[in-house]
Amino acid sequence: MESEAALLTDLYQLTMTEAYLAEGQWDEGVFSLFARRLPRQRNYLVAAGLEDVLQTLEGLRFESEDLAWLESTGRFSDRLLRWLERFRFSGDVDAMPEGTPVFAQEPLLEVRAPLPEAQLVETYLLNLVHLQTLAASKASRVVEAARGRPVMEFGLRRIHGADTGLKVARAAYLAGVDSTSNVLAGKRYGIPLAGTMAHSYVQSHDDELEAFRAFTRVYPDATLLVDTYDTLRGIQHVIRLARERGEEFRVRALRLDSGDLLALSLAARELLDEAGLQRVRLVASGGLDEEQVAGLLARGAPIDSFGVGTAMGVSADAPSLDMAYKLVEYAGRARVKLSAGKALLPGAKQVYRQEEDGVARRDLLVRRGDAAQGRPLLRPVMRAGQRVPGAVASLAEAREYARRERERLPREVRALQPARPPYSVVIGDGLARARAHEVEVWATEP
Amino acid sequence: MESEAALLTDLYQLTMTEAYLAEGQWDEGVFSLFARRLPRQRNYLVAAGLEDVLQTLEGLRFESEDLAWLESTGRFSDRLLRWLERFRFSGDVDAMPEGTPVFAQEPLLEVRAPLPEAQLVETYLLNLVHLQTLAASKASRVVEAARGRPVMEFGLRRIHGADTGLKVARAAYLAGVDSTSNVLAGKRYGIPLAGTMAHSYVQSHDDELEAFRAFTRVYPDATLLVDTYDTLRGIQHVIRLARERGEEFRVRALRLDSGDLLALSLAARELLDEAGLQRVRLVASGGLDEEQVAGLLARGAPIDSFGVGTAMGVSADAPSLDMAYKLVEYAGRARVKLSAGKALLPGAKQVYRQEEDGVARRDLLVRRGDAAQGRPLLRPVMRAGQRVPGAVASLAEAREYARRERERLPREVRALQPARPPYSVVIGDGLARARAHEVEVWATEP
Repeated sequence: MESEAALLTDLYQLTMTEAYLAEGQWDEGVFSLFARRLPRQRNYLVAAGLEDVLQTLEGLRFESEDLAWLESTGRFSDRLLRWLERFRFSGDVDAMPEGTPVFAQEPLLEVRAPLPEAQLVETYLLNLVHLQTLAASKASRVVEAARGRPVMEFGLRRIHGADTGLKVARAAYLAGVDSTSNVLAGKRYGIPLAGTMAHSYVQSHDDELEAFRAFTRVYPDATLLVDTYDTLRGIQHVIRLARERGEEFRVRALRLDSGDLLALSLAARELLDEAGLQRVRLVASGGLDEEQVAGLLARGAPIDSFGVGTAMGVSADAPSLDMAYKLVEYAGRARVKLSAGKALLPGAKQVYRQEEDGVARRDLLVRRGDAAQGRPLLRPVMRAGQRVPGAVASLAEAREYARRERERLPREVRALQPARPPYSVVIGDGLARARAHEVEVWATEP
Repeated sequence: MESEAALLTDLYQLTMTEAYLAEGQWDEGVFSLFARRLPRQRNYLVAAGLEDVLQTLEGLRFESEDLAWLESTGRFSDRLLRWLERFRFSGDVDAMPEGTPVFAQEPLLEVRAPLPEAQLVETYLLNLVHLQTLAASKASRVVEAARGRPVMEFGLRRIHGADTGLKVARAAYLAGVDSTSNVLAGKRYGIPLAGTMAHSYVQSHDDELEAFRAFTRVYPDATLLVDTYDTLRGIQHVIRLARERGEEFRVRALRLDSGDLLALSLAARELLDEAGLQRVRLVASGGLDEEQVAGLLARGAPIDSFGVGTAMGVSADAPSLDMAYKLVEYAGRARVKLSAGKALLPGAKQVYRQEEDGVARRDLLVRRGDAAQGRPLLRPVMRAGQRVPGAVASLAEAREYARRERERLPREVRALQPARPPYSVVIGDGLARARAHEVEVWATEP
């Protein structure tokens, strides 16, 4: 964990910890991290961020400079500062593997630890899992829309932050995107890199054909951007270049970045084919999202791959999830919360996915330990602050797992349109009874 | 700049640089960074991110490890790698001060440098300015809606990334937000910290009143969260605590976090006042945005301050800006781009703000160097890779400047509703002629 990163938290995590220490609230708490509901435009989410969660829990330290600053604020006791200085996360984590399709109310992960520890990590964990699940869930829709055609992630310039660009590129790749323009994501995660050329390159030359000549001298198999001045003329310039170069012509693709991409792709394909350039592919980009990708393909646009940037990178149609990290058990007693619209199911849980003929039919949400049919989705990934060996897959494995899991979802759940009815998450009898019991207890409290 | 940060860029920045070096495209280029259009829900943007831009340009280095990895990909020549190894940004930057209200087509900043340098920095600069301008612009609306009541920034858990949480907290403070829950933002930028308590704190106690007793033993002037089980009962628990504590009772405020905040705040105020607790304030939170804040106050909700999190932190109604960094001049010649919907005004520019009776009436967008009436907004901030001394204000100064500049905007532009007509940005005659000339040149190109 980087220096100062431990201070990237909400003030109340520290003040509540202060109070827990003062009161001796040392018993074990269980927190569930889950989405209270899904955005209207999401039939499922794709769990992501677990690898970073485990790294954070393993590495979380308050450095002496952090502690000195906290002390200088005059807000905190020596007791808290000494506790923070010695802080090492010692708890357990159960989690869904990255790439698992997940639904409302289902825990993506649960943390069990002495209450001050489990409380203190809330902001770090929510920030990591929220962002990456958000990004993977959006990317999964784009991949679905592209129907097997490669998708390139181009969002870095408008994703919210540079480090976030890295995390989003990883989440998108996990969800099935094929490549990224983000160079560090290539280095760090081994994601294939993709890139073409910008309008500025074309503009810096005195004419477009000259720009294409120059670029292909350096990168003969480039993808050429043809819409700087006029797309159809840009295509003609590529065809002229092909005639000039003859056998040497190796341009891989044209990129269409503006205008009516259906009409332009049809025209481009026709012009290229007439010129004998059947093997030159078409890349579309320019403000695309999954709806536009699906619409272009439905109308027969002969586009071979898609560059998708901002809309995927910021999850434009649903830029946040109603995701929370909530106390569900303390000192062996299940805990609830009854706030309007934000009620909570008590206790540690497990999710069983029930499949028929290889298709997921429903999930059963039960108390941890209750017997149930189906495939349990939450697995032990950390015990006593240490990773469970082999519990977390490599990115490549997680990507393959995500692909298989998505293919097991019912067609209407994978679709871009809202599934009617939504995928069924059934609350087990024991859990339902536990909740009814807690509601009654609190309703009769003075 | 952190290690590896130079690789947080798009692949094509490196491949285009490779091509520029191969061709000897060393002449000076000017790039403009601007919003092509504003989101429907924004009458103005608030420029932000300049401090980070200058730090990035001063500190941008390709480390040996970065270079070794780039070499290992086999994509790049020794010439490029040697150039990257020696890279130091040597160009000039003119920019609007942070906190300036800015409109579509107006450059927030312009970079003048040898073309490969000016090109290479695109992704870093866009990412920084886009995010921070997005966040400051949204926060400015929330501040406007709160009509002088304090706003606390609570977004870290769902802002897109932890480092992004830091940048958003700064941008929100710049735009007039009063405090943040983000501890590191307090340390790094001196922003006042704010925080209350979470539901988990209440839940971990066997009853709510006991939780309030315990917390106020540690923090007597706390803000107590009253909606964990039932808001009205929570308020009664605070009143009981006041009776128990008598003179010692120093609770500052109650926080309402769910339910009908208008009805609950009216009820809370009445109950508190009846109990003689007029000085206990009301804080509202829970999925708030500027529309809800404005609506609550318009209907007379007696709320004293607002905690605003996710909706502000991800700019939920407009999570990206159509912001671009475009070549407008190369080798002394103005450059355009005519792509459908993305046309570009040629040449380096200046923006003059024209005011009457202290109110901004229109902006005039002209070629740099053209004479015009009004207050020029772009200032030299970097020359030959060095900051112009005194050119960049402190955060406190920038915040005060932002406040004054916002107050100079016409009332309908500051309002939350779309201004009809929008604020007027007039294109100067010289610039209009230059654009017409370029369109003609390109229209007649073969």
